[in-house]
Amino acid sequence: MTRIGSERTIGREGQASAGPANTLNKMNIRTIDYINNKIRIIDQTKLPLKLVYLNLDRLGDLWQAIKIMQVRGAPALGAAAGLGMYLGIKDYVCSDWGKFNQKLNVVAKYIRSSRPTARNLFWGIERVLAVALANKEQPISKIKQIMLAEAKLIMRQDVISCRKIGSYGAKLLKDNSRVLTICNAGILATIDYGTALGVIYSAKRQGKNIKVFSSETRPLLQGARLSTWELYKQGIDVTLIADNTAAKLMSDGQIDIVITGADRIAANGDTANKIGTFNLAVLAKYHNIPFYVAAPKSTFDLTIKDKAGIKIEMRKAREITSILFKKDVAPKKAKVLNPAFDVTVHQLISGIITDKGIIQMPYSQNIRKILRKE
Amino acid sequence: MTRIGSERTIGREGQASAGPANTLNKMNIRTIDYINNKIRIIDQTKLPLKLVYLNLDRLGDLWQAIKIMQVRGAPALGAAAGLGMYLGIKDYVCSDWGKFNQKLNVVAKYIRSSRPTARNLFWGIERVLAVALANKEQPISKIKQIMLAEAKLIMRQDVISCRKIGSYGAKLLKDNSRVLTICNAGILATIDYGTALGVIYSAKRQGKNIKVFSSETRPLLQGARLSTWELYKQGIDVTLIADNTAAKLMSDGQIDIVITGADRIAANGDTANKIGTFNLAVLAKYHNIPFYVAAPKSTFDLTIKDKAGIKIEMRKAREITSILFKKDVAPKKAKVLNPAFDVTVHQLISGIITDKGIIQMPYSQNIRKILRKE
Repeated sequence: MTRIGSERTIGREGQASAGPANTLNKMNIRTIDYINNKIRIIDQTKLPLKLVYLNLDRLGDLWQAIKIMQVRGAPALGAAAGLGMYLGIKDYVCSDWGKFNQKLNVVAKYIRSSRPTARNLFWGIERVLAVALANKEQPISKIKQIMLAEAKLIMRQDVISCRKIGSYGAKLLKDNSRVLTICNAGILATIDYGTALGVIYSAKRQGKNIKVFSSETRPLLQGARLSTWELYKQGIDVTLIADNTAAKLMSDGQIDIVITGADRIAANGDTANKIGTFNLAVLAKYHNIPFYVAAPKSTFDLTIKDKAGIKIEMRKAREITSILFKKDVAPKKAKVLNPAFDVTVHQLISGIITDKGIIQMPYSQNIRKILRKE
Repeated sequence: MTRIGSERTIGREGQASAGPANTLNKMNIRTIDYINNKIRIIDQTKLPLKLVYLNLDRLGDLWQAIKIMQVRGAPALGAAAGLGMYLGIKDYVCSDWGKFNQKLNVVAKYIRSSRPTARNLFWGIERVLAVALANKEQPISKIKQIMLAEAKLIMRQDVISCRKIGSYGAKLLKDNSRVLTICNAGILATIDYGTALGVIYSAKRQGKNIKVFSSETRPLLQGARLSTWELYKQGIDVTLIADNTAAKLMSDGQIDIVITGADRIAANGDTANKIGTFNLAVLAKYHNIPFYVAAPKSTFDLTIKDKAGIKIEMRKAREITSILFKKDVAPKKAKVLNPAFDVTVHQLISGIITDKGIIQMPYSQNIRKILRKE
């Protein structure tokens, strides 16, 4: 793993690599990319203080980067997994498919073990495995190239998919809409544009003035560190709040809509997302505020019927007993419960904004219907 | 202000001063006291890493200690305000009541300005002002002594009042009850025993096994720093969670009851308490979990009809953009909204556990009824 030195404070603009054309991404950053035979990611644990890129050429480093959330966000993890599959086999020397396939499965299992709730991670693996299998008659070196091409395709498609989510979702926002969001479902969670925040960027592009409240998102503070930074850099009016402030804001009539991302959506619409999302959904219901989820097709998992089937990743106590693993803020011996996600039951969701349109109740039927669309 | 050196880590027991007899306070600490003509407080901003006492003999230092929450918690602030009134006039030389009374009002106004939402702070001032007024024919030196005696009486009565709250509230808990609480309404928020946590201590004393979930309480983390520490030291089974985890816990069937403290209760039962309390009340309602508030008579403010009349203290952005004023966790320029409290509407409150009994709906009638009791 090499680290490249583009470190700067948030006040200044990044030089960084060329972002996609025709973008609202004023920062001109790219969350994840494949450059010079390495996976290049922004180290998101360093934001907002420093913009640091990491170049990963070993699968173990990528696994670790996913685990400690140097790269995170559902669609970005889809790309990371796809690229990771290639990273895991690119230097593997063999000539027969059987042996190569065994290796592929070992690599897949290893990557999956990093973040069990993240549907896109599994999906990215499946896509790359599928093209390998479909081309198993080809020479191994050729299969490797096809796998890399597929991983790159995942990235290109994600950019388009986020734009579509943004475009569908923007219709929900009026001029001067006030949006509450949690965690980061923005540029930093995707390749370039964002899901929940993509909706905001699209509305802004349509000339609407949008005010965003960013819930800080304990324990790892993605709302404070990532969304507030990203929205600010994109020129959006953003106000940071403690997660605890959501109910008061809603009750004071300061929120028109809640939009969040998703990590895994079951067949009935039950949605796993960052811990605290379900809280917002209940609070929104109580205050009669619409609650929307924004996610690409790839976040749906139709093999899971409902919330009971969604495995929730449990993370280290230290995320709670310290702040970002530095200052102690609780007794070190304290018993801690630290689920990374919760599940918002579909009854609380006003709609799911996808790249194929907005899905509404009844979810079980409408999810299947929309996912069949190409 | 002098600082005395009893600094220790949380693993060890404090030697500290003699606590009240017949106490469950295994730490043998006293949140606030008047010793050697100084107000002695535990510096709560240093917990749980260090147990540091501060000796305050200037009103300005006390004001600051209240403002930055070195001393906090509704009943403790009642005592601090009472003692503060004495501190503010003890060295004031004059011989006529008119002049002395003017000074009293200046001091009262100054103390009130520290934390506008804290009812007990105002109440402590009013009590000491009342005895001064009632004794205005006495020599000034005598009035001063009467004021000090009243402030000490506030402390003694608070100890008794908390025991009564504990005793009434303990009836709500069964063996193996699982309680969710937020912020700190314990020993550290009172003179010695606690309100919401006093209920838990009383239940424990009755031989019931109680499991507590302590919500960390961003931004200042009183749940992590103070309640988790205090409960652990008192031998209670406590698990620390991020505030965001409450909904998941409730949905998983892990919470039987929510009990919180209160900072100001209006005549109709609407209750201001630490930001995030209202969130828990809404979540509890959604999950059909009883939600109780524990507070002494002195927290009620019958001059305020309902939530519209409760002034909410707004605090510094820095509490959110940094962690405990140290590590930056958000862009420094970020716009922040940081209300210290929210108001839980009475419709969401199952009952208010007071030192006179448990008040239930209809609150407007029953609050007046119970407050008339001696």
